[in-house]
Amino acid sequence: MAKQFQLNSKKNKLKFSVTVTLKEDVLDPQGKVVQNTLVNMGINNLKSIRQGKHFEIDINEKELTVAKKKIDEMCRKLLVNLIIEDYKINIIK
Amino acid sequence: MAKQFQLNSKKNKLKFSVTVTLKEDVLDPQGKVVQNTLVNMGINNLKSIRQGKHFEIDINEKELTVAKKKIDEMCRKLLVNLIIEDYKINIIK
Repeated sequence: MAKQFQLNSKKNKLKFSVTVTLKEDVLDPQGKVVQNTLVNMGINNLKSIRQGKHFEIDINEKELTVAKKKIDEMCRKLLVNLIIEDYKINIIK
Repeated sequence: MAKQFQLNSKKNKLKFSVTVTLKEDVLDPQGKVVQNTLVNMGINNLKSIRQGKHFEIDINEKELTVAKKKIDEMCRKLLVNLIIEDYKINIIK
């Protein structure tokens, strides 16, 4: 009982990271500008650079599966443009 | 000898990901807007959301340490504002 409570209070919030990247076939002008700038700055050996978005999300939820589903809903509804972007959800703690 | 060559040709390019996040004490208005929007959309249990940048970098370099040093140089010179941002470098392959 005490252990269960400890577990719950510890796990009462979960932290996720979401990485949103452009699909491979989609042009990335922002990344291209960064790449050209780096080359102009004298950095060689650079093959390609692509830019994406990163979110760190704290959620008040102790159940991992429920939390993951919520995060997935956020991604599909707002954070990610599914036509041109992919996303990956990772749990941090 | 053959094995060494195979290793080199395989490892001739390395792929890194760089995650840039705002330092904890720095305000994140962009993340705040996303958070408010999600709450207005009816997503509850959300505690906080912070937005950062994500880069995927391919580099023509077979030595891991040299490549990592190059990526670090890119971060410090262009990709990251060290006053307000932190960064993490991960190798993908």
